[in-house]
Amino acid sequence: MDSVELEVRTGRRVITDLTAEVVAFCGGRGDGLVHVFAPHATAGLALIETGAGSDDDLVATLERLLPRDGRYGHHHGSPGHGADHVLPAIVSPALTVPVLDGEPALGTWQSIVLVDTNVDNAQRTIRLSFLAG
Amino acid sequence: MDSVELEVRTGRRVITDLTAEVVAFCGGRGDGLVHVFAPHATAGLALIETGAGSDDDLVATLERLLPRDGRYGHHHGSPGHGADHVLPAIVSPALTVPVLDGEPALGTWQSIVLVDTNVDNAQRTIRLSFLAG
Amino acid sequence: MDSVELEVRTGRRVITDLTAEVVAFCGGRGDGLVHVFAPHATAGLALIETGAGSDDDLVATLERLLPRDGRYGHHHGSPGHGADHVLPAIVSPALTVPVLDGEPALGTWQSIVLVDTNVDNAQRTIRLSFLAG
Repeated sequence: MDSVELEVRTGRRVITDLTAEVVAFCGGRGDGLVHVFAPHATAGLALIETGAGSDDDLVATLERLLPRDGRYGHHHGSPGHGADHVLPAIVSPALTVPVLDGEPALGTWQSIVLVDTNVDNAQRTIRLSFLAG
Repeated sequence: MDSVELEVRTGRRVITDLTAEVVAFCGGRGDGLVHVFAPHATAGLALIETGAGSDDDLVATLERLLPRDGRYGHHHGSPGHGADHVLPAIVSPALTVPVLDGEPALGTWQSIVLVDTNVDNAQRTIRLSFLAG
Repeated sequence: MDSVELEVRTGRRVITDLTAEVVAFCGGRGDGLVHVFAPHATAGLALIETGAGSDDDLVATLERLLPRDGRYGHHHGSPGHGADHVLPAIVSPALTVPVLDGEPALGTWQSIVLVDTNVDNAQRTIRLSFLAG
């Protein structure tokens, strides 16, 4: 298994598209599975369409389902930070995608995105691993 | 890695049971992981009990958590279609199941289902991949 | 692929930390993926921080998103048991984690937990599988 860590600049974005990085990592590798992993307790990974409104719709949905208010027992840091720590149970930080002839077999409208509602961290690590089949 | 695409007839169903297809694909393959993947931006995969009410309960839950109304920025097509595009962040379109001696090691009450709230598409593609261990 | 079943004593807990069991299973195995699987229809697996309030926050969030009341079509057993059967569509019972030199490459604050809202079962089975890379 080949495994690398990427440093990803997220700034204050909740959604960061990682598709280009995953495609580059898989190039030349043949068939197998690529495993994408966010080793953070306030982040998840999702396969969604980007650039056509759904990224903002996802952010709004997460704010509605996991309100950023005072209800959480885990409440250090910015208000509502407890919500960030519930997120990975709903949007898992582990994702596998099949790779064929060195290319992730994504659908036309699928992008691989990091979802990180904890915007106090402007930089994140992502681990990519390739398991040949 | 062996990988195939299935064409699945979903009609206007939200939940489509794929267990028989996955079991057939794994037959005779020994030990490994089967990877089930929906290369669509409005679908997910889940492991639930089917045929005892929970499929409809899941549909009702998704309608409650992701209401089909005018709130979404992505809003072409039928009303509430923006909800379909948020779904894969909550119900991931990638799923792996262990396979032992050619059989998915599912629990007694677990079925592998496609969850696709975008009922305007009557046919869907599913990719099955087997990684031998 | 090496695959074992663990019997896990959950008692009446919703969240049960499995990290130590997964770490022990991976020890000495080199690089690969560890697959964690709950062969149950009312359980999921999550990567969250434990011991700092977020476990209880997750339990409260699940009770809010999947209310334990009479709305479910699947309604045998204790009141609200139908919610338990929707849970695995939101919190998947299948999880893969990269393993490097025999150690799961978890982030500092990540623990692998079983999430089982059906507290009538005091004992659960977990399947761990290791796929070498």
